[in-house]
Amino acid sequence: MSSSTVLQGVAAAQGVAIAKAFLHEEPTFDIVASKVESVEDEVQRFDEALAISKQELSKIKDETEEKMGADKAEIFAAHLLVLADPELVDAVKDKIRTEQYNAGFALNEVATMFITMFENMDNEYMKERAADIYDVKTRVLSHLFGFEATSLATITEETIVIAHDLTPSDTAQINPEYVKGFATNIGGRTSHSAIMSRSLEIPAVVGTKKITEQIENGMTIIVDGLDGTVILNPTAQEIKQYEEKRASFLKEKEEWKKLVNEKTLTSDGAHVELAANIGTTNDLEGVIKNGAEGVGLFRTEFLYMGRDELPSEEEQYEAYKTVLEKMEGKPVVIRTLDIGGDKELPYLDLPEEMNPFLGLRAVRLCLEMPDMFRVQLRALLRASSFGNLKIMFPMIAAMEELRQAKVILQEEKDKLITEGIEVSDSIEIGIMVEIPSTAAAADRFVKEVDFFSIGTNDLIQYTLAADRMNERVSYLYQPYHPAIIRLIKNVIDVAHQEGKWVGMCGEMAGDEVAIPILLGLGLDEFSMSATSILPARNQLLQLSKQETAEWVTSLLAFDTSEEIEQEVRTRFLP
Amino acid sequence: MSSSTVLQGVAAAQGVAIAKAFLHEEPTFDIVASKVESVEDEVQRFDEALAISKQELSKIKDETEEKMGADKAEIFAAHLLVLADPELVDAVKDKIRTEQYNAGFALNEVATMFITMFENMDNEYMKERAADIYDVKTRVLSHLFGFEATSLATITEETIVIAHDLTPSDTAQINPEYVKGFATNIGGRTSHSAIMSRSLEIPAVVGTKKITEQIENGMTIIVDGLDGTVILNPTAQEIKQYEEKRASFLKEKEEWKKLVNEKTLTSDGAHVELAANIGTTNDLEGVIKNGAEGVGLFRTEFLYMGRDELPSEEEQYEAYKTVLEKMEGKPVVIRTLDIGGDKELPYLDLPEEMNPFLGLRAVRLCLEMPDMFRVQLRALLRASSFGNLKIMFPMIAAMEELRQAKVILQEEKDKLITEGIEVSDSIEIGIMVEIPSTAAAADRFVKEVDFFSIGTNDLIQYTLAADRMNERVSYLYQPYHPAIIRLIKNVIDVAHQEGKWVGMCGEMAGDEVAIPILLGLGLDEFSMSATSILPARNQLLQLSKQETAEWVTSLLAFDTSEEIEQEVRTRFLP
Repeated sequence: MSSSTVLQGVAAAQGVAIAKAFLHEEPTFDIVASKVESVEDEVQRFDEALAISKQELSKIKDETEEKMGADKAEIFAAHLLVLADPELVDAVKDKIRTEQYNAGFALNEVATMFITMFENMDNEYMKERAADIYDVKTRVLSHLFGFEATSLATITEETIVIAHDLTPSDTAQINPEYVKGFATNIGGRTSHSAIMSRSLEIPAVVGTKKITEQIENGMTIIVDGLDGTVILNPTAQEIKQYEEKRASFLKEKEEWKKLVNEKTLTSDGAHVELAANIGTTNDLEGVIKNGAEGVGLFRTEFLYMGRDELPSEEEQYEAYKTVLEKMEGKPVVIRTLDIGGDKELPYLDLPEEMNPFLGLRAVRLCLEMPDMFRVQLRALLRASSFGNLKIMFPMIAAMEELRQAKVILQEEKDKLITEGIEVSDSIEIGIMVEIPSTAAAADRFVKEVDFFSIGTNDLIQYTLAADRMNERVSYLYQPYHPAIIRLIKNVIDVAHQEGKWVGMCGEMAGDEVAIPILLGLGLDEFSMSATSILPARNQLLQLSKQETAEWVTSLLAFDTSEEIEQEVRTRFLP
Repeated sequence: MSSSTVLQGVAAAQGVAIAKAFLHEEPTFDIVASKVESVEDEVQRFDEALAISKQELSKIKDETEEKMGADKAEIFAAHLLVLADPELVDAVKDKIRTEQYNAGFALNEVATMFITMFENMDNEYMKERAADIYDVKTRVLSHLFGFEATSLATITEETIVIAHDLTPSDTAQINPEYVKGFATNIGGRTSHSAIMSRSLEIPAVVGTKKITEQIENGMTIIVDGLDGTVILNPTAQEIKQYEEKRASFLKEKEEWKKLVNEKTLTSDGAHVELAANIGTTNDLEGVIKNGAEGVGLFRTEFLYMGRDELPSEEEQYEAYKTVLEKMEGKPVVIRTLDIGGDKELPYLDLPEEMNPFLGLRAVRLCLEMPDMFRVQLRALLRASSFGNLKIMFPMIAAMEELRQAKVILQEEKDKLITEGIEVSDSIEIGIMVEIPSTAAAADRFVKEVDFFSIGTNDLIQYTLAADRMNERVSYLYQPYHPAIIRLIKNVIDVAHQEGKWVGMCGEMAGDEVAIPILLGLGLDEFSMSATSILPARNQLLQLSKQETAEWVTSLLAFDTSEEIEQEVRTRFLP
């Protein structure tokens, strides 16, 4: 008699999926550091594996383009570029020639070095490059070892993908028409796979720890992205129950669409602003489609990446102007460059750091390189007359930094005015609160800003001293840790005492568990990925600001993130 | 007409020195990645440079031993070991043979890799290893390039050493009979050179930024380690003035010696405890000589380092028993293993991490490796009946960790009692407060501990998200940042509300600027390096606890670390 197994993970994207499991496994290669007799034969063997991989990728690219459109095929164009990248290919050949290693070992060494470098960078663009190299490495190794490479793009029946983890290129290959959900062993709400599941709107559960060990290909499973459970081998009754849950969720989702043009008013009539985080002007379509009331975070680093030199003032001006114009007077918070440390710009040639997350990044780097900083500030100021611009400095840890940044901004403003260029005189100036020092001493910082925006991704990792990219300490990525609640409360309380507003632009702002807490604490603006806006609005419409405010102080008596999450779930998410 | 130049730096060690400058410069080598014709000739050239270096070092070692004693000569024994280390020597030869590089380039590559690895580790033992390799590298390069290597040990007249920075092996070569003071370009109060200056009791100013550029060999200079100034080319009047300042300081220092057996009572009769930080049982002599009222921090990691395998329960038991017995019933706080992340134990073979300071270290690692942890806890429990033991867990960030550690401790205690082994029933259990989450949520943690000890070195670096080993963000190592004051205040306030005591074992506890603040905030125990105890006691005797308590809240209105330091200096350190 079969009975079902229930696994608990992290709810990554809302919805319910019921389908057969597709186990997506990485092939494992037995890579050993053996030396070869003839290095030139080995180089040739490597060249052949490259050639077959190229052929294969070109074919997949063409098919994907035809079937799913040019944008979905882009990832394979990127893979083809990696295959042809002399930095990688020549380094592997060098390693074969000078150290006589076999091609598999040489490729693995070189590729792993690049992957480690890119993978640990804190932005999607660079992580995608790591994933590209990883995929290409796997593909070429498959040919060197005589295996068949598999791809999620070849799935053509309704399935739920099960994997240890999904890389950006895995998720890029997912066709939501067939892939109805996914579940992974590792990851949390802010891991790439979780962010992509929300963006693709596919129900997903991440961090189940060992689903890959318990699943068999073709087994029926249920993925409940609403409460983070996965059911293996469900009973007929469970299937029926979850089909009903899915139907009711889909109905609810249809209802959300009606909220696109609504204001976000709580059940007791308080207004909070729901804004979107964007990386490029391309993201604006989704922002408008999902009814965002503003842009809460424009990450300007994408303007600086994937190129050989700094972007000109003109290029930046055009980008900022476009965002401001398209948002038609709605608030747009643009964050100055947040690069350095783990996020490298090869053309800046920054020295390596032992702890890049604790290094010279963001505003620290901008103050070190004021010429670069001034170009961005001029572009922002020139664009300011085309909309409702707010400028935000990232990684402010000490008052000296804020004052220095403001002085430079004022100098550029004065220069532009002298030059006769129009600059808005109502630009608000704010800072990210993402470093514990700024959260704890917010009562000092508030005197010199117009607003705060809490960056929870970094604030959590610094407050708990745990690298959020490091799987070994992922248990310490605790959004509801009593310290996080206290720091957020402090920031909002002192800001409101001075009549300033507080936003939040970390993943936490769109998290259904966090939303009642944040509303209760008095958060004014919630900025999140565009696809989270309508469910968040729907949730907020049903919450009472006064009731959550009365309840929220009771959280101060809880000891752990888990206990607080449980309390919220029991009370608000039954 | 000559006029003097005044430079401002960080006061690292108290006292005044007036003498001729000795500019300690590293030779610079023009290292290029050229390829050689005959690799075997190049290997021989490298072997010859090693041989001359060995001869030279043996001679210096013998001379030092004769002149200054065996302990001062130990550093050169360590250098000789590096010279003979096959891991280093063979790697260089391999690089010459397989990649045809010249010996200088090959040595520099290999040595730099080891140096970077060790240098960034957060303990003196490992940093000394980095400095050893650096010194040996420089010596061998000198011979490869035909330069003369210089050594601070050759100084035989009264001088003040001026350098960009001083490595542990530089400071080990300093003979305080001749070296009357030093001043460096870089560093802060917690940098190696600063810690060593206090330990050697040589007046020092670090972090002057560019003294090496402004000094000439033989120029008369004044180093004022009391207020952090250096005067180049002083006038006759300045010399007279500082000779008086020196005399009055030396007289004061004589007075301190009378305080060895005094209790630390403030001017209004309040008692605070002055304890010492130790690394090994060898440090106990200094602890007793300087009149410490206890050991506030025994760093147990030294028991685990410089060996091939974990120390046995018996070895640990002996060390803990020795400390407890020698302290004769005075309180001894022993911290469980704080290793991992940046502090590696080669035999544990831990994976590399991108941000080791934010990685799997200290109690996080111990909870991952409970078998190792249990051995230490058993040794501690067995030793507990020989004195006044308090056990402290480092790097606690979340309540789950504390609870888990306490459960394991209780299990081992129960086992020992079942085995009929005596265990003290009055062992206090505490935690380091060195992670912002624990400081901010101290009101929760206090319910489950007997005491807190604030670890400011880490607390400052995490709170400001700035690696304290990274010179590029050293401006953010701000002990008096408004956030640090607030967090310390919170920790002490909530502990006192529950009747618990609070200590501090970071460098800040012995800092004359911090002491009035900490007294005012109500700190109960100050733990510092042994040589800081008497001046700290002298300072505390003259402060009123009630007055500092009334004054300290006024600091909450200051915006920066600098402003707060200024306020303390004006009021308490005129």
